[in-house]
Amino acid sequence: MSIQALIFDVFGTCVDWRNGVAQVTEAEFKRRDISVNTIEFATYWRSRYVPAMANVRNGQRGYIALDELHYENLIETLEYFAIADLFSESDSRQLARAWEQLPPWPDVVEGLTELRKFTLIAPCSNGSIALMSHLARFAKLPWDAILGADIARNYKPEPAVYQASVLALRLKPENVMMVAAHNDDLHAARASGLKTAFVARPTEHGPAQSTDLVAESDWDILAVNFNDLVEKLKYRL
Amino acid sequence: MSIQALIFDVFGTCVDWRNGVAQVTEAEFKRRDISVNTIEFATYWRSRYVPAMANVRNGQRGYIALDELHYENLIETLEYFAIADLFSESDSRQLARAWEQLPPWPDVVEGLTELRKFTLIAPCSNGSIALMSHLARFAKLPWDAILGADIARNYKPEPAVYQASVLALRLKPENVMMVAAHNDDLHAARASGLKTAFVARPTEHGPAQSTDLVAESDWDILAVNFNDLVEKLKYRL
Repeated sequence: MSIQALIFDVFGTCVDWRNGVAQVTEAEFKRRDISVNTIEFATYWRSRYVPAMANVRNGQRGYIALDELHYENLIETLEYFAIADLFSESDSRQLARAWEQLPPWPDVVEGLTELRKFTLIAPCSNGSIALMSHLARFAKLPWDAILGADIARNYKPEPAVYQASVLALRLKPENVMMVAAHNDDLHAARASGLKTAFVARPTEHGPAQSTDLVAESDWDILAVNFNDLVEKLKYRL
Repeated sequence: MSIQALIFDVFGTCVDWRNGVAQVTEAEFKRRDISVNTIEFATYWRSRYVPAMANVRNGQRGYIALDELHYENLIETLEYFAIADLFSESDSRQLARAWEQLPPWPDVVEGLTELRKFTLIAPCSNGSIALMSHLARFAKLPWDAILGADIARNYKPEPAVYQASVLALRLKPENVMMVAAHNDDLHAARASGLKTAFVARPTEHGPAQSTDLVAESDWDILAVNFNDLVEKLKYRL
């Protein structure tokens, strides 16, 4: 197995979007005396994510950066909680950038820094180049490049996203490993010929999470966190 | 002037391609007892760069990554110096990657590291994402993202390259500054609405350089090197 680059899912795999979005929202809600539970708010907001991308993936809508979908989904979420009229458009645009301010899981910065000594690392996320670069600055993720949705102008798990990322690296798919906490992401990556590593994130969706608790296929690497990933990969890079 | 991102020309502006290519070539030539002058070799190789991109820019040829053009130009250069039969295809492919191993000018790493504290920084080069990310690893250039030719699928100074880079950052052109040692690059960036900074690199083409010694227009910033650029920008970022 000759791996020449590692590409990573980001939301859920590298960063804790649930607590991160709730934290940023908390500050905004306090200033406005809004008593909505911010974890419920983050969860509802996130629930609009897959359906919003579906319209791009099925071609009903041209490619539009995830930042815009996050903004549209935020408006729906504010309406759902009946607090939309407390936010101006500019306030909402600002709050939508909560997704640029997410904390990394505790093992991520150390793990990526170590992996980067051995190989090229890049996100292959549905986040745009702008979103991923701001998030990387916030969370100190030491990427070599930003790949993913923007360069493919489509969303995972469409094959185009993995393929455009591999193409941008000028590598063969079998020399690139996709790292994700989501089995469907890895299924799609494998279908395009990439190697796969599953890193469990059992509290991404909170303590009652019931999905993606375990590997659902024989992924090339199974790791409990990024430190474990380093141990399992470093003699092969 | 509100600058929210700085984008950089790389070959010549950030790194010394002439001495860098000569150095990598020197090692390969020694192993083969080739006595060609490597500065002349680098200069001839580089002279094929603009004509090779012209065919893409004028639409005669679809977009092809600069790595491939460098390879094709290397073959022509080896033929010009009558040493092509001393290199297998795999040797030539390896030597073509000399452009990933170029030393930064002495002020660059410190300057970029300082600028990055204040704002987002990214290359806007004709180099591909692969080439730019390998070069960044070699020269320790701390980019937040890789923009430029690959995301536009065209070459500078085509407007599409500056525009696609600004679009990827989700900024307005007037909030992005192009930094380059080449007046034509800045003319094209300004024509697309970007701010401009000229950093002189008077020995990019060697001691007898006669072009780009001075700013040929009223660029927003004139700097003698990246440390000077930091001083002139840091209170405005």
